[in-house]
Amino acid sequence: MSFLVMKFGGTSVANVERIRNVARHVKREIEAGNRVAVVVSAMAGVTNQLVAWVREASPLHDAREYDAIVATGEQVTAGLLAIVLQGMGITARSWQGWQIPILTDNAHGVARIKDVPGDKIRARLEQGEVAVITGFQGIEPERSRISTLGRGGSDTSAVAIAVAVKADLCDIYTDVDGVYTTDPRIVPRARRLPKVSYEEMLEMASLGSKVLQTRSVELAMVHRMRLRVLSSFAAPEAMQPARPETWDQIGTIICSEDEIVEQRIVSGIAYAKDEARVSLIRVEDRPGVAARIFGPLADTNINVDMIVQNTSSDGKHTDMTFTVQESDLERALDVLKVAKKDIGYFDVKSSSDVAKVSVIGVGMRSHAGVAAQMFKALAERGINILAITTSEIKISVLIDAAYAELAVRTLHALYGLDKD
Amino acid sequence: MSFLVMKFGGTSVANVERIRNVARHVKREIEAGNRVAVVVSAMAGVTNQLVAWVREASPLHDAREYDAIVATGEQVTAGLLAIVLQGMGITARSWQGWQIPILTDNAHGVARIKDVPGDKIRARLEQGEVAVITGFQGIEPERSRISTLGRGGSDTSAVAIAVAVKADLCDIYTDVDGVYTTDPRIVPRARRLPKVSYEEMLEMASLGSKVLQTRSVELAMVHRMRLRVLSSFAAPEAMQPARPETWDQIGTIICSEDEIVEQRIVSGIAYAKDEARVSLIRVEDRPGVAARIFGPLADTNINVDMIVQNTSSDGKHTDMTFTVQESDLERALDVLKVAKKDIGYFDVKSSSDVAKVSVIGVGMRSHAGVAAQMFKALAERGINILAITTSEIKISVLIDAAYAELAVRTLHALYGLDKD
Repeated sequence: MSFLVMKFGGTSVANVERIRNVARHVKREIEAGNRVAVVVSAMAGVTNQLVAWVREASPLHDAREYDAIVATGEQVTAGLLAIVLQGMGITARSWQGWQIPILTDNAHGVARIKDVPGDKIRARLEQGEVAVITGFQGIEPERSRISTLGRGGSDTSAVAIAVAVKADLCDIYTDVDGVYTTDPRIVPRARRLPKVSYEEMLEMASLGSKVLQTRSVELAMVHRMRLRVLSSFAAPEAMQPARPETWDQIGTIICSEDEIVEQRIVSGIAYAKDEARVSLIRVEDRPGVAARIFGPLADTNINVDMIVQNTSSDGKHTDMTFTVQESDLERALDVLKVAKKDIGYFDVKSSSDVAKVSVIGVGMRSHAGVAAQMFKALAERGINILAITTSEIKISVLIDAAYAELAVRTLHALYGLDKD
Repeated sequence: MSFLVMKFGGTSVANVERIRNVARHVKREIEAGNRVAVVVSAMAGVTNQLVAWVREASPLHDAREYDAIVATGEQVTAGLLAIVLQGMGITARSWQGWQIPILTDNAHGVARIKDVPGDKIRARLEQGEVAVITGFQGIEPERSRISTLGRGGSDTSAVAIAVAVKADLCDIYTDVDGVYTTDPRIVPRARRLPKVSYEEMLEMASLGSKVLQTRSVELAMVHRMRLRVLSSFAAPEAMQPARPETWDQIGTIICSEDEIVEQRIVSGIAYAKDEARVSLIRVEDRPGVAARIFGPLADTNINVDMIVQNTSSDGKHTDMTFTVQESDLERALDVLKVAKKDIGYFDVKSSSDVAKVSVIGVGMRSHAGVAAQMFKALAERGINILAITTSEIKISVLIDAAYAELAVRTLHALYGLDKD
């Protein structure tokens, strides 16, 4: 017998028919003797309607009222799933954030989970009752008002609940059947990874393989909670119920490095096309100039990703290149214009026709030469590298967007990730 | 300065535009120096959608889950109204049933309010904050799960909150501009009543003038809370804000008899066309037969209204006639068929072509002859009376449905209720 948390997102519960499908996934696990807590999002479209009403009510609105309104979406799904489960003869009840309670800080709209007392739910699970829990929401410290975690927060709810009830596995059902070595639309020979380490998953998620919310992976890593990504659209009865011996045969398990037996140097190739490059030409090369550039950007919540500073040719001036999210580009240029006098630069150039391609793998820690191989392979294809950043388990290069697919395919083959 | 509760139903908050109109009603009162708690229903249509989902999930469903789902409708309205009020520069916050808390029994779906601690809200009102409170819902005794009061329960929520915060007046905004002497569609000369006693309103409500939920009037009567019925569709700024000197100039106030100065014998003529008549022919006339007839009906939750037992012609048999709601007729006939052997009757006849017309007025207590006048006037018009019931302040007759309008017009003129 295993204790499971099963999380289903908005498209998996988009209507009552799909909620029935979710219930069949739950039934399979219950019939195999497992204990189940389910975490659900709002039915696809419902949250958008609620947000539209809020915006119509006032463009500037109280985040506490926004939370009270949008949290209703998950409450509806949880109640409906409990009813469908009961109709299948399964004991179940719905739980709203404040009822457990899922305690958060009071940053309404973007709240963080602080604590989830799990004993009450665990005891119910042990008696065979299914707990259907609203994702995405909690209650703030004074326990008076509903808070929400922000879009995508249901993954984080699921992990927090899995930790609280001491689950063996936290299954995240989604519209893909696992994590792949790269995007199968670009490389048809991409393989599903049976296991990925938390660290690798974090690099993949933040680089554009948006299967899981970053915070949920961080939380799972801290508590060493085993996550599994699998498809909710597969026929529920055709899937194996979760058993420790076989649970890595479906989907992708995200777990500690030491649970991964198979040795790989590189696990996957990620890419992101939503970056934009900004170059400041002839910046004065004096102490503190970086702070004068990046301070104002940080103040306006613009994340800067890659940074390259050229060596100074005349000892007085240098060029500074960095990347931001494409959607932040216009705001970034405005900020730089305002700060021009303070920074002191000659000109600013920008381009959104760039892509970031990354090679990720925990094996890099112990293997030298991965970067060298990469640069050589790209050069052979005539792909020019505009910028480079590295971490312990990742190498990213910024290239012309037109070469993104070619680069991904080249690197996927280079590191032996192609399917046999 | 007055403390007001203002209640708005589903059609008054059907979309954000109408919620804005409600906010203007609230603003008028705040600007006049009044303190306001608002009680809101779900946006028209929202509850129906939620109920449809529940039914699709399972025709037989857990009432606790039903409550958790449908209660979200009011949460959305309360949040939106709070946001709109804030946008108008008015301090406001939304309150859900469990946050106050509105304590109910645990009869989910048809819960009754047991207690509402009002100090917290009263203190906020005194500081000038508007409390926007979800109608129709509360929390059951273990304070773990949401309960709902059943359809129309928002009126009762409003009265309970008015009592809890010691309000001076509980304004129920609706789609009519007051209580009339009878239905103006039948009698164009019908007049708006400036004041009606609780007792009269109860008779009117249960007889088909469905302006207010019966339980809300009962609760107001017990606590002597002044109610006022008025239209939410009138231009908010054109209406007088609530002041004790003038608050009976708009709508209809429902209050204690002793607050009504104007003396009337008859206050109004009510009618109901949704009754059906059932006659049991040749019932054995022996002790306990009434219990054997009405016991099984009560067990299946069928309300019996008027009952007429003919005198026995042969000392052994009698005919028994009674009325039920038209919607219950088929079920009633089924019940009687099953119980036929136990009751012992020869035949059953039924008809839904009947109407009940009632004359209501607290003045009847001290005036004899009201009934005699009524019977004489109906006889002069050739209207045959099928059954009669009376109370201290009401006389009802069952007649052929075809004569309903004629009877109402005749009685309205007879008791001097026609407008000058």
